[in-house]
Amino acid sequence: MLSKNPETWLLLKRIVRFGDTDAAGVLHFHNLLRWCHEAWEESLDTYGLNASDVFPTGFPQERRLQVALPVVHCEGKFKLPIETGDHLKIILLPEKTDTGCFQVHSKFQREGQAVAFGLIRHLAINAETRKRCSLPENINLWIEASNVNLGPKPL
Amino acid sequence: MLSKNPETWLLLKRIVRFGDTDAAGVLHFHNLLRWCHEAWEESLDTYGLNASDVFPTGFPQERRLQVALPVVHCEGKFKLPIETGDHLKIILLPEKTDTGCFQVHSKFQREGQAVAFGLIRHLAINAETRKRCSLPENINLWIEASNVNLGPKPL
Amino acid sequence: MLSKNPETWLLLKRIVRFGDTDAAGVLHFHNLLRWCHEAWEESLDTYGLNASDVFPTGFPQERRLQVALPVVHCEGKFKLPIETGDHLKIILLPEKTDTGCFQVHSKFQREGQAVAFGLIRHLAINAETRKRCSLPENINLWIEASNVNLGPKPL
Amino acid sequence: MLSKNPETWLLLKRIVRFGDTDAAGVLHFHNLLRWCHEAWEESLDTYGLNASDVFPTGFPQERRLQVALPVVHCEGKFKLPIETGDHLKIILLPEKTDTGCFQVHSKFQREGQAVAFGLIRHLAINAETRKRCSLPENINLWIEASNVNLGPKPL
Repeated sequence: MLSKNPETWLLLKRIVRFGDTDAAGVLHFHNLLRWCHEAWEESLDTYGLNASDVFPTGFPQERRLQVALPVVHCEGKFKLPIETGDHLKIILLPEKTDTGCFQVHSKFQREGQAVAFGLIRHLAINAETRKRCSLPENINLWIEASNVNLGPKPL
Repeated sequence: MLSKNPETWLLLKRIVRFGDTDAAGVLHFHNLLRWCHEAWEESLDTYGLNASDVFPTGFPQERRLQVALPVVHCEGKFKLPIETGDHLKIILLPEKTDTGCFQVHSKFQREGQAVAFGLIRHLAINAETRKRCSLPENINLWIEASNVNLGPKPL
Repeated sequence: MLSKNPETWLLLKRIVRFGDTDAAGVLHFHNLLRWCHEAWEESLDTYGLNASDVFPTGFPQERRLQVALPVVHCEGKFKLPIETGDHLKIILLPEKTDTGCFQVHSKFQREGQAVAFGLIRHLAINAETRKRCSLPENINLWIEASNVNLGPKPL
Repeated sequence: MLSKNPETWLLLKRIVRFGDTDAAGVLHFHNLLRWCHEAWEESLDTYGLNASDVFPTGFPQERRLQVALPVVHCEGKFKLPIETGDHLKIILLPEKTDTGCFQVHSKFQREGQAVAFGLIRHLAINAETRKRCSLPENINLWIEASNVNLGPKPL
């Protein structure tokens, strides 16, 4: 059953772990991108989608998804040092850029203050032909539900 | 304030994410060890310890912890393929092996079935001299609270 | 063409990178297991095997390998702190434990001194039925070539 | 001793490893950013700088670097699927954007064809006060040596 309130799937939490840091004592930068992707996955979960309807699973893979969603672009911006044990709030903003492409903005806050931003852009492609296609319906539903209810300038 | 019921800090949950897998379609093995360490950190959190009282933090580091807890041994065993979206239950069993050493067993279950096991052993050392020393008091408390209440054969 | 001298594929080098460390200033433990697997892959490369004859590749996967080699056990031991910029020598010792199982020991040295050890054990399984089977011939060749020429007590 | 020919430290190689992929069978995106940072580190090595003159090392840290170089921005673009075993050529282009900031562009090629791009931007800050400062002299030298000799349009 699909969740109804976008806040439940667009406002997430994460605690920074020791292995996320480096010898400078703070977050090693590329882990932010991992967090962004995992936050997106958690958002789909919470909204009500099954991982196996979005990501390739199964071993041996019995069922092939018709559409793949490779990452074509990613970005991270770092505003303040992030440390082990920090409690972060993650605010997601999904955005459909055309019929076959969407991106998810992630804003990371600590005690109300922005500490970092992330962006991941996915393209929809036919898993067999590797040619561009429309976004799968479940992703469209998640994007629409995310945007309709939060109002025009949610973040 | 410290938690009272060991189940709250020894029975954890984790959902497998896409980035945890490899091209064989299942968990890439070494991520299990990352999960074990993160589960230990979550357990300390939930029990009531501050990350900054256990792990080096601060940039520049204003305060040096007297005791460091380097990992000296780790192990993983894999019983069944683990896939994106799997809901795992993690059961932790902390064990003090002598006054200056402890290890944490992690048992990973999916729908009641064991899928993997992990083990991380930490040594207490003086952060300045690098010589072995006793476990810090907060870690001792966490181990004792974990063992007393679950009974003789908790897992 | 296959390499002839086992030293070329069993004695490898690695420089520790900043992202391998954590806020304690030294190697974050689980990266050692990643190094072990990558050293094994480099060893196969240098010996003369193609990655696509051992690991699932291809997108969409046109050709399925008949045998998969999942990791069933791994281990790491840490003797001395390892830091960014350290030049490590990795000594591999492959060992066939039965017709369908092998393990690779990795010994990490810095300036002649052992700093860490790793072990990864792989089981051969039929990729379709998931039942145990014999090791693939290319892996057998690599193990035999590795053991014959280095003498009775190579490490 | 410093290297003289920029090609030795700006044209690097990397072989894609199994753990870099995900269940879609190709590179899991955020590893590209790890590769970019490691390529930068390898470039400094090859040019002739010591890791301990650029990155915090030492345990306990006996000597503190005066200048830290945190990542403030990173970017990745993905053009073609990248698979286990792919032999990649990495072309680095360092660029000083002002007296206290530089960025490194990474272009990833396979058999002469661009498969991905990366960018990491670093800010120089005083390690104690955390305020912006000039780039350290060793980094300036590496950037100048990288730009002078390759001519006006190196890439």
